[in-house]
Amino acid sequence: MNIHAIYHRAKHNWSYAYDRKTLHIRIRTQKGDIDRIDLFCGDKYDWPNTEKKVEMKLWLSDSLFDYWEVEVEPPFRRLVYYFGLHAGEEALYVMEKGFLKQPPENVHHGAFDFPYINPIEVFTPPAWVKDAVFYQIFPERFANGDPSINPEGTLPWGGEPTPKNFFGGDLQGVIDNLDHLTELGVNAIYFNPLFQATTNHRYDTSDYLQVDSTLGTNETLKELVKKCHERGIRVVLDAVFNHCGKAFAPFVDVLEKGEQSKYKDWFYVREFPLTVKGYIPTYETFGFEPIMPKLNTENPEVKEYLLKVARYWIEEVGIDGWRLDVANEVDHHFWREFRQTVKGINPDAYILGEIMHDSLPWLQGDQFDAVMNYPFTNAVFDFFARDQLDAAGFSSAICTQLASYQRQVNEVSFNLLGSHDTSRLMTACKDNEGLVKLSTLFKLTYPGAPCIYYGDEIGLDGENDPYCRKCMEWDREKRNESLFDFFKWAVALRKNNSALRTGSFSFIQADEGSDQIIYERADSKDRFIILMNKGGQPATLVTDAASFTRIDTNTNTSVTLVDGKVNVTLPAYGYAVLRTDVTSEQKQPQANVAGGAAAAVASVKA
Amino acid sequence: MNIHAIYHRAKHNWSYAYDRKTLHIRIRTQKGDIDRIDLFCGDKYDWPNTEKKVEMKLWLSDSLFDYWEVEVEPPFRRLVYYFGLHAGEEALYVMEKGFLKQPPENVHHGAFDFPYINPIEVFTPPAWVKDAVFYQIFPERFANGDPSINPEGTLPWGGEPTPKNFFGGDLQGVIDNLDHLTELGVNAIYFNPLFQATTNHRYDTSDYLQVDSTLGTNETLKELVKKCHERGIRVVLDAVFNHCGKAFAPFVDVLEKGEQSKYKDWFYVREFPLTVKGYIPTYETFGFEPIMPKLNTENPEVKEYLLKVARYWIEEVGIDGWRLDVANEVDHHFWREFRQTVKGINPDAYILGEIMHDSLPWLQGDQFDAVMNYPFTNAVFDFFARDQLDAAGFSSAICTQLASYQRQVNEVSFNLLGSHDTSRLMTACKDNEGLVKLSTLFKLTYPGAPCIYYGDEIGLDGENDPYCRKCMEWDREKRNESLFDFFKWAVALRKNNSALRTGSFSFIQADEGSDQIIYERADSKDRFIILMNKGGQPATLVTDAASFTRIDTNTNTSVTLVDGKVNVTLPAYGYAVLRTDVTSEQKQPQANVAGGAAAAVASVKA
Repeated sequence: MNIHAIYHRAKHNWSYAYDRKTLHIRIRTQKGDIDRIDLFCGDKYDWPNTEKKVEMKLWLSDSLFDYWEVEVEPPFRRLVYYFGLHAGEEALYVMEKGFLKQPPENVHHGAFDFPYINPIEVFTPPAWVKDAVFYQIFPERFANGDPSINPEGTLPWGGEPTPKNFFGGDLQGVIDNLDHLTELGVNAIYFNPLFQATTNHRYDTSDYLQVDSTLGTNETLKELVKKCHERGIRVVLDAVFNHCGKAFAPFVDVLEKGEQSKYKDWFYVREFPLTVKGYIPTYETFGFEPIMPKLNTENPEVKEYLLKVARYWIEEVGIDGWRLDVANEVDHHFWREFRQTVKGINPDAYILGEIMHDSLPWLQGDQFDAVMNYPFTNAVFDFFARDQLDAAGFSSAICTQLASYQRQVNEVSFNLLGSHDTSRLMTACKDNEGLVKLSTLFKLTYPGAPCIYYGDEIGLDGENDPYCRKCMEWDREKRNESLFDFFKWAVALRKNNSALRTGSFSFIQADEGSDQIIYERADSKDRFIILMNKGGQPATLVTDAASFTRIDTNTNTSVTLVDGKVNVTLPAYGYAVLRTDVTSEQKQPQANVAGGAAAAVASVKA
Repeated sequence: MNIHAIYHRAKHNWSYAYDRKTLHIRIRTQKGDIDRIDLFCGDKYDWPNTEKKVEMKLWLSDSLFDYWEVEVEPPFRRLVYYFGLHAGEEALYVMEKGFLKQPPENVHHGAFDFPYINPIEVFTPPAWVKDAVFYQIFPERFANGDPSINPEGTLPWGGEPTPKNFFGGDLQGVIDNLDHLTELGVNAIYFNPLFQATTNHRYDTSDYLQVDSTLGTNETLKELVKKCHERGIRVVLDAVFNHCGKAFAPFVDVLEKGEQSKYKDWFYVREFPLTVKGYIPTYETFGFEPIMPKLNTENPEVKEYLLKVARYWIEEVGIDGWRLDVANEVDHHFWREFRQTVKGINPDAYILGEIMHDSLPWLQGDQFDAVMNYPFTNAVFDFFARDQLDAAGFSSAICTQLASYQRQVNEVSFNLLGSHDTSRLMTACKDNEGLVKLSTLFKLTYPGAPCIYYGDEIGLDGENDPYCRKCMEWDREKRNESLFDFFKWAVALRKNNSALRTGSFSFIQADEGSDQIIYERADSKDRFIILMNKGGQPATLVTDAASFTRIDTNTNTSVTLVDGKVNVTLPAYGYAVLRTDVTSEQKQPQANVAGGAAAAVASVKA
């Protein structure tokens, strides 16, 4: 045994309450190193009457490690526990205080402890997010529905985007085109900033309580939200609370009055007057951007103001959540108050942080419900589009990511491919429509809340900002309608099958050097096997199945069943989606995302 | 390289702000596996102009791992970073996204990120605790200063303690004997519960706003605190907020009125009426103890009440902190509000949690300043008293513990040996006074806030509760006065030498199978070498030193300097404390506890 590889630290993502009754306990070991793990557990105040042994399941593996998981219902909301690891004849007992060759004589000396499931601490993100498919709208570029409020110098729709130009996209344009969203099948919108600002991206807020006058009015937004809700579409807005814009009144005051300004402590001023020396502002900013001064979120006045903003749009306009820009540069204390404020008004509001990195400190139930899943984005692009990962590397990256978080976090993770901050999906895929479809299908059959960036569904292309912010194409003649049909099919596939939303997830096949993957999603109702070939040559894949139903309609794919095995020949960039029977034996005891994946390879039997 | 052994996860105890300018970055590798580690770091928004390479120090080692640490001042409060590991010719680069054989081409793809040092997030426990020596008083058994308030059935002072008997100890008794504390040299008291209750330990509070009438009045406590403050002694009280007692009015109301009680949601009632079935109460309790009903700390009324209590004793009586009983069974949300309340009144108040296990989730700056360091207690007893650990195992346990927490946490850790919940020090040491002295000296020369349990300093003995709660012995004839002299000497030693309080800590020698340890504490002023022999036979130890001053006065110990080496012959259970010169070269750049220990063995040169 590689003793150095074994990892468990109580709480965090290693032991946590999934609901008010259930703990999930996990441990990490070197890949392939351990045959069996038993969890020994019981109530710390009555070990003799409550102790039991439960076998853990091999849940996930990445290239280095195996991750084991088990669900336990503590008899009295508290649990002490230790692990028994077995490899051949060898046994090792893992305690908080260290490793033992024999079971501990006294569990009270150095076992692990989950002290108590306090109901308020059970991390319960809003349930609707598990069933959501998001659509991201960059408002300046979606549709111009009211030319009367065009900003000065508005260019004709569809021109080349630059960092500073305007095409007159507005909220009326969104209202007018909600049928497009309904046709696509999405049921949630994430809007880039809508509030008064000076730029076309509006990440430099001037007034947090006003819709930008070139987008509409607060009333227009209210109408939009109402019309969305009538269609079953929820609306999440962008909260840019890390920094404001140069035209935000308190900042203007400090610019003008310097140290005499009563707003001077709303910002972090290193030196008066406010200016830029070389490329470095004399005050803290987002990056080194002078027009984006960082807000001092520990100043009670700033906090009060921003929390008023957070309340206002929920109470007055009825939005369903907030996406938090540059969320990791704002202090945790602020976000805790933010959550209390927001959830106090609407417990079902979705709180989504923009964090590119490991986000565990924000995902303990006291701050965000989810983060934008860029590690997912990177893994998908590295495999499907960039040839940076083979199938084994892709599977490893995905499983590392799943193992990093609690199950409820994975269930509402915001999974994006294209966005306003990165190359468009089509361009990332080097204009290969087949790869666009594969990566989209993977996203739409993966745990979490998938998001489609406006226009990706009809084949818009574009390199990174500003080119990924092109105007939406409304002329059906100029749109990739077959791609749109694919997106509609894939969204409907997800919506119609709970297993693809909240079922378990596991890779069945993902080999080194390979371009092909097979994975499954399963719940108590259905089991899906999905096969993908992201290579430029046809490929034949074989996997076990007693029977199946073809779900895709790809005519260039052959699928045959011989002796309990499905043989699938996929063309270049091809895929197949099969539904197999769930026998009573195969039914997943854990019907939720990415848990129950424990079944892993071993359970995929004919 | 054992790649599976390498561990770093951003934030937690692996990367954190030590002050408003300084980050500490740590990484773990297999013991002895790696020769050198470089940290590559810079500002994420201006990597080309800010990138730099800094060599990490081998800070600590336990039996399995090396822990490396480095201090960095980010130019703009934010830092991206990755590690370069070298072993012979082999190199490995550690990124958040995984391992690389070559340095990354682009630091923005998958490096680690410390997003921002927000001032409010810098964990700054009260500075006075670093210089504190605590004295724990179990009030029923310290001194009877006012027989007029003796509880009914009070027994003559000094009788055999039972779970239920009373000897009349009270607050006047403490006031009358403050000279004893001053003589001992302590400068802080931790009191077991003082509030109205029904038991002799008073962990079953009946009224959180009244001093127990058999101890005195709120005014007596006020006087006591005032007199302590006049002597430079701070006072910390026990907050029993996890549960109340059976005579607490709201609980009495629920007992009487059942579901009709307006206090029914102050508790977790599984089933009305409140009763005990078998040994299991129908309501949640501490353990299965019917007289200690668990309080529902997420109920706003309960929260308001308990926070009023927390405020009251600070504002009205002037106490200097709270020790939180059964702290890990109360929810984190409550403790965050508790901290805000307490620190809002007195930012210098010490918040100390009772947690026996790994306590990282409570020690992120938003909840406690420290926890009771039971892992320290266990390691000291396992080595000095129980022969469960040899010197190498002891050093390993101590270093694992130090590596588990941020430096500021280790600096104020509450280090106890005897307590009201465990065998007395003398009894744990099997009445071996030599071992009592060694373990005490270790505690008093170790980072953190040492605590002496009343009576341990004069040799009281006693097995676990109730026997560890004997009456204090005031008859000097019956006290171990030479032990008391030793305690006074050791406390003074710590108080007179900053290096022993806040200097770096490291083991110089701690071998497998050995009963001897050599360790050092050093700051910019002084360097101490402390040698201990916990074995029953004399032992000779040798270590490097250019010169030294004997600090101890043990006549049965021989210390000689020959060719840059000190030869120390210790009797059984002997020790020696040497002060050596700090040459300018040896001066520690990190003058704080347990950092700068990086100097480790290598720096201990003549």
